[in-house]
Formats: sequence, structure tokens, C-alpha cells
Amino acid sequence: MSCSCDIRLRLPVAGLCLFVLLGGGTLVPSYGKFTENKAPLSALENQLLAAPSPERARQTLRTLTAKPHLAGTPEDYATALYVRDELAKAGFQTELVEYEVYLPRPKRRRVEMTAPMKYRCSLTEPALPDDPDSSSPLAVPTFAAWSPSGKVEAPVVYANYGLPRDYELLEQLGVSVRGKIVLVRYGECYRGVKAQVAQQRGAAGLLVYSDPKDDGYVQGKTYPDGPWRTDNCVQRGSYRAFTQPPGDPLTPGRPAKKGVPRLSPKEAGLPTIPIQPLSYRDALPILESLRGPAAPKDWVGGLPVAYHIGGGETRVRIALEMDYRLRTIWNVIGTLPGRDFPDEWILLGNHRDAWVYGAVDPSSGTTALLEVARAFGELLKQGWKPRRTIKLCSWDAEEYGLIGSTEWVEDHLAELREKAVCYLNVDSAVSGDNFRAAAVPSLWAITISVLQDTPDASGTRSLYANWRAQDKDAPEVRFGKLGSGSDYTPFLHLVGVACLDMSSTGSYGVYHSTYDSFRWMEKFGDPSFTRHAAMARAWALLAFRLAESSRIALNLLDYAREIECLAQELAREYPQLDSTGLLDAARDLTIAAEAFEAEPETKATLAARNRLRQQFERFWLTPEGLPKRYDARHVVYAPGVFSGYGAEVFSGIRYALARNDAEDTARALAQVIAALKQATQALHGC
Amino acid sequence: MSCSCDIRLRLPVAGLCLFVLLGGGTLVPSYGKFTENKAPLSALENQLLAAPSPERARQTLRTLTAKPHLAGTPEDYATALYVRDELAKAGFQTELVEYEVYLPRPKRRRVEMTAPMKYRCSLTEPALPDDPDSSSPLAVPTFAAWSPSGKVEAPVVYANYGLPRDYELLEQLGVSVRGKIVLVRYGECYRGVKAQVAQQRGAAGLLVYSDPKDDGYVQGKTYPDGPWRTDNCVQRGSYRAFTQPPGDPLTPGRPAKKGVPRLSPKEAGLPTIPIQPLSYRDALPILESLRGPAAPKDWVGGLPVAYHIGGGETRVRIALEMDYRLRTIWNVIGTLPGRDFPDEWILLGNHRDAWVYGAVDPSSGTTALLEVARAFGELLKQGWKPRRTIKLCSWDAEEYGLIGSTEWVEDHLAELREKAVCYLNVDSAVSGDNFRAAAVPSLWAITISVLQDTPDASGTRSLYANWRAQDKDAPEVRFGKLGSGSDYTPFLHLVGVACLDMSSTGSYGVYHSTYDSFRWMEKFGDPSFTRHAAMARAWALLAFRLAESSRIALNLLDYAREIECLAQELAREYPQLDSTGLLDAARDLTIAAEAFEAEPETKATLAARNRLRQQFERFWLTPEGLPKRYDARHVVYAPGVFSGYGAEVFSGIRYALARNDAEDTARALAQVIAALKQATQALHGC
Repeated sequence: MSCSCDIRLRLPVAGLCLFVLLGGGTLVPSYGKFTENKAPLSALENQLLAAPSPERARQTLRTLTAKPHLAGTPEDYATALYVRDELAKAGFQTELVEYEVYLPRPKRRRVEMTAPMKYRCSLTEPALPDDPDSSSPLAVPTFAAWSPSGKVEAPVVYANYGLPRDYELLEQLGVSVRGKIVLVRYGECYRGVKAQVAQQRGAAGLLVYSDPKDDGYVQGKTYPDGPWRTDNCVQRGSYRAFTQPPGDPLTPGRPAKKGVPRLSPKEAGLPTIPIQPLSYRDALPILESLRGPAAPKDWVGGLPVAYHIGGGETRVRIALEMDYRLRTIWNVIGTLPGRDFPDEWILLGNHRDAWVYGAVDPSSGTTALLEVARAFGELLKQGWKPRRTIKLCSWDAEEYGLIGSTEWVEDHLAELREKAVCYLNVDSAVSGDNFRAAAVPSLWAITISVLQDTPDASGTRSLYANWRAQDKDAPEVRFGKLGSGSDYTPFLHLVGVACLDMSSTGSYGVYHSTYDSFRWMEKFGDPSFTRHAAMARAWALLAFRLAESSRIALNLLDYAREIECLAQELAREYPQLDSTGLLDAARDLTIAAEAFEAEPETKATLAARNRLRQQFERFWLTPEGLPKRYDARHVVYAPGVFSGYGAEVFSGIRYALARNDAEDTARALAQVIAALKQATQALHGC
Repeated sequence: MSCSCDIRLRLPVAGLCLFVLLGGGTLVPSYGKFTENKAPLSALENQLLAAPSPERARQTLRTLTAKPHLAGTPEDYATALYVRDELAKAGFQTELVEYEVYLPRPKRRRVEMTAPMKYRCSLTEPALPDDPDSSSPLAVPTFAAWSPSGKVEAPVVYANYGLPRDYELLEQLGVSVRGKIVLVRYGECYRGVKAQVAQQRGAAGLLVYSDPKDDGYVQGKTYPDGPWRTDNCVQRGSYRAFTQPPGDPLTPGRPAKKGVPRLSPKEAGLPTIPIQPLSYRDALPILESLRGPAAPKDWVGGLPVAYHIGGGETRVRIALEMDYRLRTIWNVIGTLPGRDFPDEWILLGNHRDAWVYGAVDPSSGTTALLEVARAFGELLKQGWKPRRTIKLCSWDAEEYGLIGSTEWVEDHLAELREKAVCYLNVDSAVSGDNFRAAAVPSLWAITISVLQDTPDASGTRSLYANWRAQDKDAPEVRFGKLGSGSDYTPFLHLVGVACLDMSSTGSYGVYHSTYDSFRWMEKFGDPSFTRHAAMARAWALLAFRLAESSRIALNLLDYAREIECLAQELAREYPQLDSTGLLDAARDLTIAAEAFEAEPETKATLAARNRLRQQFERFWLTPEGLPKRYDARHVVYAPGVFSGYGAEVFSGIRYALARNDAEDTARALAQVIAALKQATQALHGC
């Protein structure tokens, strides 16, 4: 079965159907600095693009990364005040919003190999002479967030990336992990999946290390000689399962305000086995000592050892003590109320908390957010006010599991359902020069049009050209699909808001380590800070056009066409599935969306049509959740059960098919079809 | 164009055409221990198969590997006397044949990195506690045979495997190796090619190291924990170009007897730049310091560094002093004169000299040779004498460049042209359990029939079944093509004798190092020594049947069919080549061979027909040599110019085509066609 839509081109890679944007359908004037035959930018747009300053961005990043600022620490609070004050200076109404959430920090950590020889893991990231920030008593020691306190000593089994398929292979080799300490490497999936699967398989403990093949010397020179992960560098991170409700684990579905009822920690579904992340320097002696079967070819990493699975000879003791308690976190919300449509909200967000300094993750994004604020501030000085409300959000405790954003969304759920038009997320804004974006299809056209008008860091081409140049053989740029892993998650999955996430990426091996520092950014990520400025420009212009255009710039036909294409892919992939109903419903949606988009916009209909545009994403949330999934209610895009960050399309249907559950398959199909029919009906009724 | 021969099957791998052997065509009775419907083995054959003893093989190997026995040393001489005495004990007439050949040994070697930091390479293989033989003052220090003495200091460039394509890529990156020290890794081609190409490209010196990706920890556990190359382990070896005449470099084409005229060393075409092999431990600091462009993905080895090409910052000094002189070497020849056909020689050969102990290379082969001798000895005791002459040859100085065998062949060239029927080579007999053979096609049928009757080390299946099991998807076992790299070379390329080379291979990472020791063999190569016994059985039975059958067991139709198939492959590969003449000549040869093999053997014609079988291989030697090749005269099989060990089919034509030389292409084509026509005529005339 081939794609029936004439103007779609099937991309040669992955499963995504895109269509060539034919120049028409751009909803706001844009001019031809980089693309031909476009209308000129307005004076305000030109001003907005000119505003972001690389030098100011450098100073902002230096300020934000002066100290480690882990969620819930005084240094985190200081950054919240700084962001609030900068937003206020630019002319925003600001709020500092506190929540009290349950957060762990490490107290004592000890990992040692006890057989066949003694080796005590250092578990520390040493100071590097080239990087003045690489040593600080404020840096949180390397640890796995949400690991319980606990002690265990057991034989070690190496299990590659720790995915279900890895354990299946171990079973075929006759190797059980029950009661063992499983050693896996980072990569291929969200780390929380590794913990969940290890625990389900009966492991007694989990060690997760960064293999140099994945982000170390196999990729290139290591820090401080190059941007990649060096021998002692450790990836911290959250190990909470995405299949648990997001946000504060003790207040699922409720904002974590003072005095609200809380679960006991035992009810919160946190990991039950001790977990510790390791550098490859600490993992090396353990891997070297492993005997038993040789690791399969694709399990072999880049360390100078013969990778083996372990034959019982290597024993490790893990002893962890965690300090779990309620801690205060601080979101900052800056608002420019809309002059015409105050109840249509254009939300921009970025988290502010970092595992240590987080120069890339997230401070480059916070820097871009402040440049966006300052750019709007220059317009405000001239008397401009946005037609729709613009909100800039600085989230806390994202690293622990999207906590600040989720609590705020839970706090304002009804209002957001009513008012949110879109949520534009930037997490790590800059780790290199390659522009990327993921978004729901209704945002594709407006985003491309904005990127075509925005100079990239070189100043010689647009961000669109930058993105396009990364895969010249593809017929168009390819938007990623939104799974999870940053603060768009509660907006997409709890509210049903059209979301986008973008970044400028590159060789980045210091993720979640102390070495994600200002020095790293100066040397590798963005020496001239022009990439920060470019990201701020695109973000500001996208928000501006979404806030200013009389017609809300969400393209429903693009969404319908993409859904039809995705349905056809699903049908091809699962020929056994009776997909007639789904395909028919998707076809009907496209026909309805074609009629909707073909209709001329009139003053009489604009309000109702904009209302439908604003609410369209809400149709994809099914109230009862996907079958057997407590984390996902979006029938089109959901985080994959075994990828976590990666999105899965029609996840309810796929997950039921993977479990051979005919009843759930039928339920999931019915959910999707019902959602499509509701949306179709709404389009017809408009 | 598809293969026109009905009973041939096209193998799915590589280019080789094989055909299914349909059971017919076995020339001697053989019975069904492992294969069905075969005639029983004769009593003598059963006795021969029963004779080789694993325990005796163990003792023999222990004796041979008691001391390092480099060619031309007193310890080498001791092994010659031992082999001579053992042959004599078994009942062979024996000769100790001396030559005086030009051989280098290292006097002083120093390699040090001088910038960006100091590092002096150890250039030594340390003693290992697990291996009592791993330290000996008699072990020759690690060195590159045929490197000149010399000093050079220059910047380093990393050039992957050092093949022409690697230098072409460097050129594209704007990196010149002129005046530089080139660092390459072992693998992909004969090491002499690396020296020749580096020198041609203007390099000032060459360092060659063993990357763990190729034969170290990436492959598996390293010695003494496993069979692979450990950090300090160095591959010694000859760096003489195969494009030079083989054998003693000062007496090309002549036996290196006392008093014969000799070239001056300067005329001998030896390498002119200093060369030193390195362990990966010594290469690591150099590779780590290299800057400049990142190495392409497939240039990246297994060391824990980001591989870079070098940007001029890394400088190395090489200072070598070699001790070149004429040295005496000793071949041992054992003969059982033929009772009926004393002038039809079945030759078996193996070299005896080792870089150090050479438990695998070549002492496992010498051990097998002595077990063959002892097996024949048991038959001799019962009054048996072979119908044809059997010669067992123990060659010296093979490691320096096939010197002992080449000098002996040069010494007996006319006699060998007249009398040699076949030459059956075994170099490293055993490094594991996987049987392999390479042979000219006339030997395929008899070899398969022998392997089907010979138990492998397990005793539960034949060596044929062992070989077959290595690729179950292939329609038949696949004989390798003979290139160069062991002592069959002068027989195939100087005399034109039907040759075979076989071994039982496995995980073997200690090649040409001190650690190729008795301990390695006991732990990894053949703990029970049953593999040695199996190789001796097959070798003995093959020699026995070739010596005993009234009809010489060389199948000319197999050879003709294979040549036709190879010609068709060449035509497919080079559609621009006018291959009509070649294809016609090959077709005519097959038709003539079909007629020859179909004709019933009669007493009247047997002698003439056997004579043709014996002489058939001689047709492929072209007297003038292949165009622009001074090393190759065999029109069908020749060593590849840039692979060395690997064979190239119709190498004259391919080499001319690669150089776009129309005149040489025509000459080479004409050579092949002339040879085919001569052979066809001879078949018709018989």
C-alpha cells in the first residue's frame, strides 16, 4: 500500500511521511533574506531578529553557570531570582512559584569489586587543570536519582544496554540475572528503562556506565582536548520509570503545594534496587575481570578489554545511602498579557535546574530564554503589546523527572485546557551547530517559515538551510516525533497542547557531568555564542508570529495528512491488523481538514475557527489512558515503553500488538478511531 | 552471463565457482566411516590413519619448542638434526642441505616520541608468569626483517593499514606523508606491501603496530587469559616486497651455495626506509598524541583513544642498527624412493625456522610432518614401499621470505620440472579446530575424498564434515586460492607444480611473537594434541593415495572447469574487456578435458596420460613473466600486488586493467590464451 496523498513525499529514512511545502500556506508575511519570493519581514520582526546579542548571551551563561545549581539548592534559588529579575527588567509580569517535592540526594556511596580482586570505584569526577569550574564542593556527587538506599553484594553480569532483548539473549546463553548485580552501559534508551527492566528481571543491583564507544574516545577527542566524555566523567540522571505518573512522585495528579495529601514513599513506585552510575574508568576493572561467555559482537564497547558476560567470578558490593526529603523548588513565570486575545496563551519554556553547572543542559536554553525576553523587551519599550498572551516559563527540577513543569501544569490544568495555544520548549539550546526540531504536525509549516527567515550562527544562511544541509538526500527537513524527556511532556500528554522542542546540537559527551561547564561551551559548544543568539532569534520569531497572526498559525490539514500517513504505515507494518476502520477514519479526517483549510477566513468565522485550531490537539487525549499504560493518554504520540525518550506512534495499538493482546488491540484501535471521529466532526461543524 | 557448466554451483560468497562432487571420480577405494556408499579403506590406509599419536605429537612439539630457533642460529641447526634423525629413524633416506644466505638480525633499536611529550617505546615482550617460555635471552628482539639500519626523526602520520587507498584518502584530506614517519596497523595485506607503498609515497620511516581490534582484546581475552594478542606482544616478520624475486636476495634465480656470484646488497631491492614493528602498548602514546583530522570511521581501531591522522605535533625518532651477514641455513630432505615410478615425486613440505618458539608457526606443522614420517615408518617396517617417490622437506628461513625452499627449488629446478607431481604444504598446522585448505583445482577431488575418510580431532566426524560445518549455507566446501606466504610459492610459481596448503585454524593472536609458545598451544591451540594427529592423518593419507594410485590423482577436468568459470567471472567483472578469445579458449580446454577424463584408462595409455597429469600445471607458467611483474609467471593464480598473501586470478590481466594499460592488457590476455591453447592441444594429443 503506498501513500495516497499526492503532495507527500515518502522519506527514504525511518517511517515519517512529510510533504513538500509548496510556498503557499505560509500564514504570515516573511521575506526573502534567505528564501526567494517571500514578503518582507515587518519592522517589528526585523527588530526582534536583530535583538539577541552573542556577547550578552555569553555573560548570561557565565552568570547562570557560576555555581552548580541542582534543583532545591540555594544556588538554584539564586538562579530563579536572577531569571525573575531579568524577565521583570524586560517588562514581563513575573511570578516565583514554589512547590514542595520529594527529592533524593546522595549521602554515602560505595561501590567495590570484592572478587576476583579488590577494586574500589572512585565515583568522583576530578578537577581538570584546563577547567577552573571542574571542581566545586557544591557539585552533587555522582549518583542515580531515585535509587533507594541499600547494600548488596553479588556476582556481576554484563547486559549490554539493559534492554529486554539483551536479557532475552542472556537467557538463551543460559545466564540468569536473578540475584545478580547487572552492569549495563548508557545509551539506546532512557536510563529509567534500564532500571525498570533490571528490576523486573530480578536483578539485585544495577551499575550503569558510559562506554567510550557511545560518547567517549571512540567518537573523538575527550574533554578537555575535545568535546567527548573523558575517563572519569559520569552521567548522573533520573532513574524513575516513565510508566509512572510524571512529576513529584508523592502527589500524582495534584500540584505539590504545602499541605496537600501525599503518598507514602513506598506507594510512589520508585525503584527498589540500588543503582549507581559509573565512569568508564571505574567500570574497566570490573569488565576486565568478567569471564563466562564472550559478549556478542554488538555488545562490545570501546574499552580495551575482551567483553565477557560474566561467569560468577566477579563480585561487587554496592552500598548507598540516600537523603530523601521534601524540598522546595522554584518555577519562574513571566507573562505579557495579550492585548486582543488574553485567553490565548503562547507558552515558551525551559528548565533551569542542572545536575551540576549544566552549561549546555539547560543553561544554554535559559540563556536563550532571557535573550527572547530581552528581545520582546525592546519591542515593549516602543509600545508594542502582543495580540495573544505570551508566557515565558523557567522550570525547576526537570532533571529529577519534569517535576517543576508537571506540578505547574497540574496546578493550572483547567486553565491550560481552556487557554493554551501551543508550548514551545527549548531544553539544551546549544551543544553544537546542527539545528533540530521535533513538533506535532500542526506546527510544522509555521516553524519552517520562521526558520527560513532566521539567520543561523554563520549569518550566511537560514536555520532552515542549516537543518536542510544535514541531509541533502532527503526531500525535506524531518521533524522529530515528541516522546518524552523534557518539559513539553506534561503539556502534550496532560493538557493536549501543540508542542515543539528545538535545539542546536553537536558533539557533546559531557552530558549530566561536572564538565558540562562554561569552559566546555567556550571551547566546543559555541565559542562565539552566535548559536545561542540564533536559537533565541528563532524562538522569539516563532512566538511572535504565533502571538500576532490573526489566524492561529496551527495547520490542521498537515496534522490530518500526517495521521493518515502514519495509519497507512501501521497497516503496512501489521498486515494482520484489521485497519480498515482506522484508515477510513484517518481518510475522513483528511477530507474534513482539507475542507476546513480551503474555506476562506472571514471575520464572522475567525473566532470559532481559531478556537478549533487551539483545541485541536486536545482531541488526541483519551480520558481513560491507553490500555495498560498509566503514563500515556495521547493516542497518536506517546513515549515508547522500552525507549522512554523516543516517541512511538499509535503506542496503544502497538503495545497491545506486542503483547498479542487482542482485546487491548481492539480497545486501542477504538480509542484512536473515536478520537479521529471527534476531530472530524468538529472540523465539519466549524 | 551465467555459468554454463551444468554440474557447477555458484557459491554465494566471493568469486569462486565450485562444483558438487558427485561421488564418482574418486580414484582410490575409500570406505564409509563418515560418508556413505564408499569402498572400505585398505589395510594399509587403516594402519596409516591409526598411526599418528597425540601423545607423541605433544612430546615432539615440546622438543621443537624447547628453545627459540630462528633461521641460521645454533638452535635452528639443532632442530634440523633432530628432524633429520627422526626421519632416518622412520626409514627415510635423509640429507641435510646447507645454503649461505643473506639474513638480518637486529643489533640496536630505539623508537621514541620526542614531541609533544617524551615516550620511549619498550620494544620488548616481557616475561609472563603463566608461561615459563615467555622469557629467553635467545629470543630475537622485536624487529622488522629487511629494514635497513638508519636514523630518522620526523612528524608522524597515521595511515590505517597502509594500503594505496589509505594514502589516497590522506591526499584528499590534504595530508602528505613525504618525509614523515608513517604509523600503520597490521592487517589486510602482507606487511611487505605496507613497506613498499610507504616507501613509494616518500615516507621517511615506517612503524607498524598490532591494533587490538584486529587480533587483540576486541577479538577476545588476551594471552595468557585467552588466545589473543596482549598489550606488549609484537608481530615480527619479513618486510621484503613480494614483487622482488623470492628467496635469498643476493642470489636471485640461483641456489645460494658457497662461492656462487652474489649481488651487492644495494642491488637486492631491499627496503630503504627504517621500519619497526610495535606492540599496541608502545603505539598507544603516539596515537593518543596525534591531532589533525579525525581518522575516518573505518580507520578507527580498538585502542582507548580518539584516532586522529596527525597534524604535525607528534614527532618520533627511529634509530635502528641491523646486523646483516651471510648465514648458513639447513633444509632437511627425507626420501622414500618409489618402487615403480621413482621419477614421479610426491613432495610434502613444512618450514622449521621460527621467529621465536613458533609453537603454532611452524612447529605444529613440523610435528605433523614427523608424525607423517612415523606413520610411513610403520608401513615400511612391514615391507611396504611407495609406488612413487615420497619426499618430506623441512625448510629453513621461511620466515625471512621462503628462503630455504626457494634455494632448494632453484638448486633442483630442472629435476623438479621433470619429476614433481605435486607439493603438499603445511605451515602452521594447528592453531584451532577449523580445517581449511587452499589448492589448485586438480587436487580438489582427491583432497575431498581423503578428508571424507579422515577422522577429525573429535573422532566423531570427518575432517571434511568439520570443514563443511563451518559454512552450512554454502553448497560445498570452498578451497582457497594459493597466493603466497608459505613454501608452496616456489613450487607453484617457479616450477609449475600442483600445490596444496592446509591447516586447522582458530583464535590465534600471538602470531610471530614470543608468546607463540608450547604453553599457548597447550592452553588454547590443541590441549589434547588430537588436532595435530588429525592433520598428520590427512597429510599422510593424501600423500599415500597420490603415491599409490596407478592413475595420478590429479583431475584435469576440474581444473579446466574452474578456469572457465574464472574466465566468465573476469568477463562479468570487466565488461569493457574483449574476453571472447579467452572464453573460447577456456571452453575449448574444458571440452578437451572432458574428452580426456571420459576416455577409459588402459595399460597402453596410462604412462602418457599420467605424464600429462604430472606436467599439466607447467602449462600455466609463462616464460617471460606477467607484464610489469617480476614475481609472477603463473597466468591463473598469482599473489596480488597489493595483498601479497592473497591470490589474484588472471593477475596479469587485472593488473594491466587496473593501470589502464591497453597494451599490457592485450599482452596478458594473449599469454593466458596461449597457455590454455597449449594445454588444450596436449589434452587432444594424449
